[in-house]
Amino acid sequence: MKFLSDNTAAVHPAVWDAMRAADAPDSGYDGDALSQRMDEAFSELFGTECTALWVATGTAANCLALAAMVPPHGGVVCHREAHIEMDEGGAPGFYTHGAKLMLAEGEGAKLTSQAIERVIDPIRNDVHQVQPHAISITQATEYGRVYTPEEVARIGSLAQGRGLGLHMDGARFANAVAHLGCHPAEVTAQAGVDVLTFGCVKNGGMNAEALVFFDMELADVVRYRRKRAGHLQSKGRYLAAQVLAMIENDLWLDNARAANAAAQEIAQACGSRVFHAVEANEIFVVLSPAEQATLRAQGFDFYDWTAPEGAPGAARLVTAWNTDPAHACALARAISAL
Amino acid sequence: MKFLSDNTAAVHPAVWDAMRAADAPDSGYDGDALSQRMDEAFSELFGTECTALWVATGTAANCLALAAMVPPHGGVVCHREAHIEMDEGGAPGFYTHGAKLMLAEGEGAKLTSQAIERVIDPIRNDVHQVQPHAISITQATEYGRVYTPEEVARIGSLAQGRGLGLHMDGARFANAVAHLGCHPAEVTAQAGVDVLTFGCVKNGGMNAEALVFFDMELADVVRYRRKRAGHLQSKGRYLAAQVLAMIENDLWLDNARAANAAAQEIAQACGSRVFHAVEANEIFVVLSPAEQATLRAQGFDFYDWTAPEGAPGAARLVTAWNTDPAHACALARAISAL
Amino acid sequence: MKFLSDNTAAVHPAVWDAMRAADAPDSGYDGDALSQRMDEAFSELFGTECTALWVATGTAANCLALAAMVPPHGGVVCHREAHIEMDEGGAPGFYTHGAKLMLAEGEGAKLTSQAIERVIDPIRNDVHQVQPHAISITQATEYGRVYTPEEVARIGSLAQGRGLGLHMDGARFANAVAHLGCHPAEVTAQAGVDVLTFGCVKNGGMNAEALVFFDMELADVVRYRRKRAGHLQSKGRYLAAQVLAMIENDLWLDNARAANAAAQEIAQACGSRVFHAVEANEIFVVLSPAEQATLRAQGFDFYDWTAPEGAPGAARLVTAWNTDPAHACALARAISAL
Amino acid sequence: MKFLSDNTAAVHPAVWDAMRAADAPDSGYDGDALSQRMDEAFSELFGTECTALWVATGTAANCLALAAMVPPHGGVVCHREAHIEMDEGGAPGFYTHGAKLMLAEGEGAKLTSQAIERVIDPIRNDVHQVQPHAISITQATEYGRVYTPEEVARIGSLAQGRGLGLHMDGARFANAVAHLGCHPAEVTAQAGVDVLTFGCVKNGGMNAEALVFFDMELADVVRYRRKRAGHLQSKGRYLAAQVLAMIENDLWLDNARAANAAAQEIAQACGSRVFHAVEANEIFVVLSPAEQATLRAQGFDFYDWTAPEGAPGAARLVTAWNTDPAHACALARAISAL
Repeated sequence: MKFLSDNTAAVHPAVWDAMRAADAPDSGYDGDALSQRMDEAFSELFGTECTALWVATGTAANCLALAAMVPPHGGVVCHREAHIEMDEGGAPGFYTHGAKLMLAEGEGAKLTSQAIERVIDPIRNDVHQVQPHAISITQATEYGRVYTPEEVARIGSLAQGRGLGLHMDGARFANAVAHLGCHPAEVTAQAGVDVLTFGCVKNGGMNAEALVFFDMELADVVRYRRKRAGHLQSKGRYLAAQVLAMIENDLWLDNARAANAAAQEIAQACGSRVFHAVEANEIFVVLSPAEQATLRAQGFDFYDWTAPEGAPGAARLVTAWNTDPAHACALARAISAL
Repeated sequence: MKFLSDNTAAVHPAVWDAMRAADAPDSGYDGDALSQRMDEAFSELFGTECTALWVATGTAANCLALAAMVPPHGGVVCHREAHIEMDEGGAPGFYTHGAKLMLAEGEGAKLTSQAIERVIDPIRNDVHQVQPHAISITQATEYGRVYTPEEVARIGSLAQGRGLGLHMDGARFANAVAHLGCHPAEVTAQAGVDVLTFGCVKNGGMNAEALVFFDMELADVVRYRRKRAGHLQSKGRYLAAQVLAMIENDLWLDNARAANAAAQEIAQACGSRVFHAVEANEIFVVLSPAEQATLRAQGFDFYDWTAPEGAPGAARLVTAWNTDPAHACALARAISAL
Repeated sequence: MKFLSDNTAAVHPAVWDAMRAADAPDSGYDGDALSQRMDEAFSELFGTECTALWVATGTAANCLALAAMVPPHGGVVCHREAHIEMDEGGAPGFYTHGAKLMLAEGEGAKLTSQAIERVIDPIRNDVHQVQPHAISITQATEYGRVYTPEEVARIGSLAQGRGLGLHMDGARFANAVAHLGCHPAEVTAQAGVDVLTFGCVKNGGMNAEALVFFDMELADVVRYRRKRAGHLQSKGRYLAAQVLAMIENDLWLDNARAANAAAQEIAQACGSRVFHAVEANEIFVVLSPAEQATLRAQGFDFYDWTAPEGAPGAARLVTAWNTDPAHACALARAISAL
Repeated sequence: MKFLSDNTAAVHPAVWDAMRAADAPDSGYDGDALSQRMDEAFSELFGTECTALWVATGTAANCLALAAMVPPHGGVVCHREAHIEMDEGGAPGFYTHGAKLMLAEGEGAKLTSQAIERVIDPIRNDVHQVQPHAISITQATEYGRVYTPEEVARIGSLAQGRGLGLHMDGARFANAVAHLGCHPAEVTAQAGVDVLTFGCVKNGGMNAEALVFFDMELADVVRYRRKRAGHLQSKGRYLAAQVLAMIENDLWLDNARAANAAAQEIAQACGSRVFHAVEANEIFVVLSPAEQATLRAQGFDFYDWTAPEGAPGAARLVTAWNTDPAHACALARAISAL
């Protein structure tokens, strides 16, 4: 019973079906009918005109977005524990040609406009210091926390006032929207987000994410850079198929709701062990080494995590679209029994 | 009836089956059983120890290979019409951090050791001129020509003598080997090739190529750079599945033989219209605009091409693993009837 | 008697005096009074508002200019024998983050609008091919040829029509203007040049060139990139002093006229040996190995050069601002006597 | 009376003399006799074989050194307030092609082996996290603190044990050695430093620093990269002249001793206002806004600085090789009188 990560879950049957249906011959790269349908499909989904491009990985999507907003001599404000800082192997430095990540603090890997100001206000406006050009936030965050529309809007307002671009890493965007129950535009286009990495892989896709540009001019340069990064697949229709399957019939939300529900069930059982409010599909819990061993002996797989100050140990539990409710229930029971 | 390119053909059923079979949960990235099997599978295929990594596109594979062999201040000798020079949107410049492509001449996009020497011999050995660090050749070439083992070995010998790395872009490696009827190692490991882009996408795969390192130390840095380029997919098992399906049971050769045979049938009908010897699955033919229109009116799709000096027009015809023999036959007949 | 290159000549006394006068304490970087005077001084010189920045070398000046006009995924059209292509150790690739030099042909290293069109017209307007973003020409060229105002204007007009930036490498700009006898604006601002590398080092300076921006917005990003390249010297006043000394009292033109005159005297003696019209301070002559040896035995130093087809050998002779007229005369006599 | 920075002080007369003497014609770039003498001169100075290259600025020197030690996908550990992090406009990102600065803590901008371990020990050894490849320390630090030979050796030992390169930014190396009274090799070659930026500009030079390679293989690639960065000046003899003048007859130490002595005099007067031990030529003092105004009204120029927690204000006072003892004395008296 695996609670390691949502990033290895099986592909959803509807996604498989859409991929198989894409087998019919069509134009190469993104000239096929499916790829060409993406702008419209996402414009409908968000209720505002936007441009959408498929990319194989979240890392590539995030970094293409940043590179479109930030010159090589500029900087991007992000959280100290943001995925782009911690887990992308230096990809932002590669894609932006050496721009700087400027690290801000915040509980649960969430940024606030104040935290961002604490980073950018001390920067002298001269050529000796790297100047900020964009902000990147993660929705839901690396600790499974979710920004409300108001919280994003405050950051969006700051970004606009300072002339900074705003990128949202939405590897788990579906889980965030499912939690909020809001319209997806409320936490993106309407809140000042310029470009969104709309995650599919962790939510039932195989290897396609969507880059959604609310500032559509940014998409122009990304088309060139996607090719230049070796990310313009010749059989792009199989990626478009995945993405479209995710957003049609609300599959993205259904899958996210399932994952979130499983997480809630487990979270209930964890009680005060939980040290980041469970709002999406990740649960961070205090678990002593002995407790971890007990659970693993019962067949539960998960990652160790850094414990809060003073705690004996901790673990990260992640649910996915296809987490068996029986497994979630079993884990909840096992934790209750500790 | 499409003869536009092999890069959009449907995915082979055996590849589909392998991908579906990969749905079972496994470790992320390349920690899964399939990805871990690749080194052994390719070592068997080539009869020599090698390391193999999957990558989604040929552009990424080629450029990761080059970046492992060439420092940012160095250069790569390639043909003036090599894919890396003409059709990768500047990806070599991106991946190598600005290394220089040094363009050599040669009939049918084939290089010879002499042509390479004509490029590198005039380079002064000082810091004012970019120094060559590698050679890249394409097998089969962009004009469907095939290097014999002896031809590759002569280039390999030059590379070794000059301390240069040797990369082979094998987007259509299968077609080349199918034509030669030789062991795949004869035109690679045994001929001095350090790293091979082993193409699958044009040969029945979906979105996976294999980078095969005969100089295995090069793989170490590529693991980091693949991640840094956003090309380390979390569900990498679906890529490994594609690659393994291609090389198991000789599917790669069967598919290539089918494409080559269709090309031969058409080539026979073209007679003296052909202006590059047809050795793989591409046919370059003189076709006047009127003749092109006639063929298109009969339902044949293909790309215009630059005609040889003095010719009224030309076209490129490409067959694929799934080219319907009846379509090839029909095209042959239609050309004969012009 | 050295005719090797003008790039190692002594520093002109007026430049020394200006540097010594800069010893008085002042603000760092380019905050000092001399650096601050540059915009005005160059605006006066060119009779049009412009921005001027000092940089230590022509390579840095050229490449900062290109990087301001061309994105990493773009290209710059230049002559196959341009300094940026042949002699800058790959600096354009470094500064532009991998943009591509697109090589055009032309007699005497001069480009024409037609030659440029032959390079850019075949480029498909898609993401698979690198798109041109700028043109770079050298005035005087690497073969000592000079563009007339009309010739530059035709290229400027092409650049404007195609939306391309236009850079002029003026390492020997003074020699060109001295030859033309025109106003410096006629071959630059008025002819469509966006940014000029105004050379001083080869013309009596020590280690300062001026980047002159007629498109002043380009200067904004160059200020950041100059720092980022480690080219913002803290005692910049010594560089500003050099540049200002060069353009005050027409020192730049006087020096160039002296070098040109010496070149003309030698050229007269060379007669039909000359294979590039001598318009600036470089003379390219057919000289057999035996003749070269004869001259060297008489104490003349110069570089071998590639001879025109069929010629037995060749040499490059370069004069400088401080070439002793007696030496020039002696060389002329020695060549006449061959 | 300026105590703003040592980086704008006048050029020392002996340096001027050496530059003037370099006016005689010689080979270009670093082929001249002076440049060729540098290896030997620095080998003598350090009592160990080393290679020395001139570079115009400390930023370029530092970043060329880092780029020789760290691949684009790697990282460099440095202090959070290191010059390379705070004041070089992102140059490390440019020169290293996007490598990451990994920030460590330490009083007075000094690193310890423990502080470095706190940064690198948590880094997982996988491709998702940037791996450290080098350490960079500043001697004297940005707060005028000096590493003892033992302190450097402990870091050098850590570097060697972990396979990391060790760079020393010695913009004020002379001040540090003058303070320590040790042999310069004791804090560099003998302590495990691979490459040293030997500063001259802040110590009486005009625009030349020396990169001193104790790991001489690193110099090979830097020769190419110096050219590629536009830092290979054609009249390099004027830079070599500066550097050689600095180290001949111990001018570097004499100048540093003068600056340090002036700093000590002022420091004595500052008493408990000092919040970083004064070991080189920088004094950081608590000064309220009113006190700052008082001093400025008396003609003293200096920069505001961030005050220690709770203090009303602070300033940075910097002395130079040519600080007039009467000025230092006047400032000391003025501070005492506050």
